[in-house]
Amino acid sequence: MLPAAALAELQRVFAADALSTDPAECLVYGYDNSRRQATPDAVVFPTSHEQVVELVRIGREHRQPLVARGRGTNTTGASVPTAGGIVASFERMNRVLRIDADDRIAVVEPGVINGDLQVALAPHRLFWAPDPTSAPFCSVGGNIACNAGGPRAVKYGATRDNVLALRAVAGNGMAFRCGTPTTKGSTGYDLVRLLVGSEGTLALVTEATLKLAPLASAKRTLRATYVDVGAAAKAVARIMAQPVAPCALEFLDDECLRLARGHGGDAIPLAGAMLVIEVDGEADTLPAAVDAIARAARGEGLEDLAVAEGEAEVAALWAARKALSPALRTLSPNKINEDVVVPVSRVPELVAATRAIAAKHALPIVCFGHAGNGNLHVNLLPRDEAEQARATHALDELFDVVIRLDGTLSGEHGIGLAKREFMPRALDAHALALMRAVKAQFDPDGILNPGKLL
Amino acid sequence: MLPAAALAELQRVFAADALSTDPAECLVYGYDNSRRQATPDAVVFPTSHEQVVELVRIGREHRQPLVARGRGTNTTGASVPTAGGIVASFERMNRVLRIDADDRIAVVEPGVINGDLQVALAPHRLFWAPDPTSAPFCSVGGNIACNAGGPRAVKYGATRDNVLALRAVAGNGMAFRCGTPTTKGSTGYDLVRLLVGSEGTLALVTEATLKLAPLASAKRTLRATYVDVGAAAKAVARIMAQPVAPCALEFLDDECLRLARGHGGDAIPLAGAMLVIEVDGEADTLPAAVDAIARAARGEGLEDLAVAEGEAEVAALWAARKALSPALRTLSPNKINEDVVVPVSRVPELVAATRAIAAKHALPIVCFGHAGNGNLHVNLLPRDEAEQARATHALDELFDVVIRLDGTLSGEHGIGLAKREFMPRALDAHALALMRAVKAQFDPDGILNPGKLL
Ligand SMILES: Cc1cc2nc3c(=O)[nH]c(=O)nc-3n(C[C@H](O)[C@H](O)[C@H](O)COP(=O)(O)OP(=O)(O)OC[C@H]3O[C@@H](n4cnc5c(N)ncnc54)[C@H](O)[C@@H]3O)c2cc1C
Ligand SMILES: Cc1cc2nc3c(=O)[nH]c(=O)nc-3n(C[C@H](O)[C@H](O)[C@H](O)COP(=O)(O)OP(=O)(O)OC[C@H]3O[C@@H](n4cnc5c(N)ncnc54)[C@H](O)[C@@H]3O)c2cc1C
Repeated sequence: MLPAAALAELQRVFAADALSTDPAECLVYGYDNSRRQATPDAVVFPTSHEQVVELVRIGREHRQPLVARGRGTNTTGASVPTAGGIVASFERMNRVLRIDADDRIAVVEPGVINGDLQVALAPHRLFWAPDPTSAPFCSVGGNIACNAGGPRAVKYGATRDNVLALRAVAGNGMAFRCGTPTTKGSTGYDLVRLLVGSEGTLALVTEATLKLAPLASAKRTLRATYVDVGAAAKAVARIMAQPVAPCALEFLDDECLRLARGHGGDAIPLAGAMLVIEVDGEADTLPAAVDAIARAARGEGLEDLAVAEGEAEVAALWAARKALSPALRTLSPNKINEDVVVPVSRVPELVAATRAIAAKHALPIVCFGHAGNGNLHVNLLPRDEAEQARATHALDELFDVVIRLDGTLSGEHGIGLAKREFMPRALDAHALALMRAVKAQFDPDGILNPGKLL
Repeated sequence: MLPAAALAELQRVFAADALSTDPAECLVYGYDNSRRQATPDAVVFPTSHEQVVELVRIGREHRQPLVARGRGTNTTGASVPTAGGIVASFERMNRVLRIDADDRIAVVEPGVINGDLQVALAPHRLFWAPDPTSAPFCSVGGNIACNAGGPRAVKYGATRDNVLALRAVAGNGMAFRCGTPTTKGSTGYDLVRLLVGSEGTLALVTEATLKLAPLASAKRTLRATYVDVGAAAKAVARIMAQPVAPCALEFLDDECLRLARGHGGDAIPLAGAMLVIEVDGEADTLPAAVDAIARAARGEGLEDLAVAEGEAEVAALWAARKALSPALRTLSPNKINEDVVVPVSRVPELVAATRAIAAKHALPIVCFGHAGNGNLHVNLLPRDEAEQARATHALDELFDVVIRLDGTLSGEHGIGLAKREFMPRALDAHALALMRAVKAQFDPDGILNPGKLL
């Protein structure tokens, strides 16, 4: 429970409709897509930077945990207030403050929904690159804190590559700005990228200046099926080794295809594996780019390569791809959804190793995801308690394989609670010690999202 | 002078030909392109990571300043050992350890010369994006420490965008690795980007994994002249607001053109200002891209727009552009070469303000540089002591203008000694305090490049 003095101070900063200690409401702000849960002692809904400054002051004074929350769509428990305290939901700081088409920047509050931002940008023929499948419900602040990606990252980069400047309040109470609305800059340490991916453990972000990209005027979607996952994985490596960058290169294994077909019907073929490849560009340059990609997609094990005809087929392909995550949850309510990443040339080995682990532990494991970045969502799908126990071992082995392949624990979902115990496997002791040292400077009292990431 | 005990320890780690305390030799390692100078007490030439670990241990134990040195080409005094101590010259750690064409990465030691790396990559049809004009003599380690850029950054990004992983030794003695050889990753704080641009004040870099890009198969170079700098600056903003990204967009004002013509002869036109624009791509897509750029380059004040014919003309254009920096030094041995950056739409205002400052202080000031990133090398050219005194005031006003235009002190050269006093103008007190706090963690004894950056 919140100390009365802390509550009284919060009440001075937040109006009655912007502060709740009602257990029922608090409960709703206590879980995320990891299905973990904890009830905070209070939820506040800041609407200004100044309120966030006050909030951090109060949190420090009363040693209350402060957990930033976008929309709770993260998959790692990163926004679950396991130590209680105050959840700061940024859902009301959701304004697009400025779109500057000439300089290709947008200045936004952190609570703006990714999808809403894209809608606001479309009339300017611009977009912000991060496009997680959760775009219609997740926030830019959450994207920044997780370094979110999505299919487009293969060409346009993830969040890290598309944030220019931030305004934030560190856990030590210091409000600051870092970065500039320019595409280059060498003025001091890069605090912007230090905050990107820091999962609300260093500072609360109150404003972000985002780098935008011009919408290509044309796009073509290809569907390539292969006899097995190995052949598809090798095609991924070939596609990424030639000069034309696709703007999406998604991989689905046979099991995923079966599931997706349940959703998308005949637009989804049955095969050993499928790649969904998109190429964007200007109308007159596109055919050559498509040819280059198609050449690379061909090779041993290709079954069928087809350009999607018309918007309906493209939409069906993506709808099926996007339905996978929830569909897998239906199969296995306790699915473990990893998003490991390896160098692209190692994707075939990763897929093969995943198969071997599945066989060894007699456990359903499926793979799909952003193969062009070597970033696969490996889903472990235990259906009962015995399988759940085996899944723990399988996961362990999966991470060992990934590290051995020069990869790492997370490509875009982050660490949160779920992968925290594996950090010493991915990072050496000194790197971890330096991260902890940085954390201790930004948040000496350890009030920001305690127990996460490190 | 180095304490005898420290010297004895250094002698145990470094062979006689890898350690010098000879004042004459030390002198040579005491200056950089800022023309500042200070003599270190010793110079060492590490050839392995392990030696660097030992070096830092010795430096800590004996509280000796350690100044990393690539090739001393930086312009800000960043590698001048103003506090004496030991210079660690990385010139012998200059091996390209691995080129992996499939994953588009190169693993290198920090002392490898940028230009040598590009030569090694060319047979693989790959390149590393940072291309400072000093590429034939500067090191990758120096590029990393300064976040170096160059003409290509406008399309391919600067150093920050093209380093995937690092091995380093922090000032507190901890050796660590950070990052992974993958294009995506969300596993903890981004120590890689924290080191990029940190000017040797946090850690000594001993190995770098670089992100490579495929060489385009064709390139076209355009030359556009304008009646005055304002018209050219507006064309820059137009070019950058349309979707086709040039792979170079360089600006030269009238004075620079006169100088460049002295070097390049008839290939260099005389005009109010000139843009050198390059577009790269595949042979069949290039004409459309060139058209799009040419359309944007046209507009009020355009005098002449021409595609360079043949390699000789292209070479002459670039040779003249690259000769500018040394040529300006001939004009004014005490030239002040700034590399301020503003949002691209503000380039016209920046150029206008520069002219106004030059007129007010009756001081020659010329501008050229990477206009596509809003990054201009503003050169103040005092010819006598009176002008030198006025240049100090002019510089002060220039930085004020840049900050007012939402820009910052440095686009790619960094801060070093030269711009340190202006940091509080560019960054708020809290951001600076957080940077200092990070520094204190990585380098608690303050031995790494003391007096620089912060
Ligand atoms: C169906 C589905 C599909 C998904 N697909 C993808 C995908 O393709 N790619 C991908 O990358 N992710 C994906 N995700 C994961 C998730 O959507 C992203 O991680 C997203 O960035 C989380 O945003 P959020 O607003 O929901 O943040 P939350 O989940 O609320 O919070 C995430 C983290 O951000 C912190 N945070 C939030 N706001 C702030 C702030 N203002 N300041 C500081 N810290 C803050 C929180 O403390 C927490 O640590 C998917 C999730 C789902 C449910
Ligand atoms: C003619 C000329 C043109 C130039 N053009 C450009 C340009 O277009 N773009 C641009 O960005 N710059 C340019 N520069 C500036 C300069 O070349 C770059 O800053 C370059 O990156 C410096 O590299 P260096 O090897 O000479 O490093 P140095 O000058 O020796 O050192 C620079 C900094 O790096 C640190 N450092 C070096 N090695 C390490 C290491 N292993 N670990 C940690 N720290 C290290 C040093 O301590 C110092 O702080 C130019 C310079 C000249 C002389």
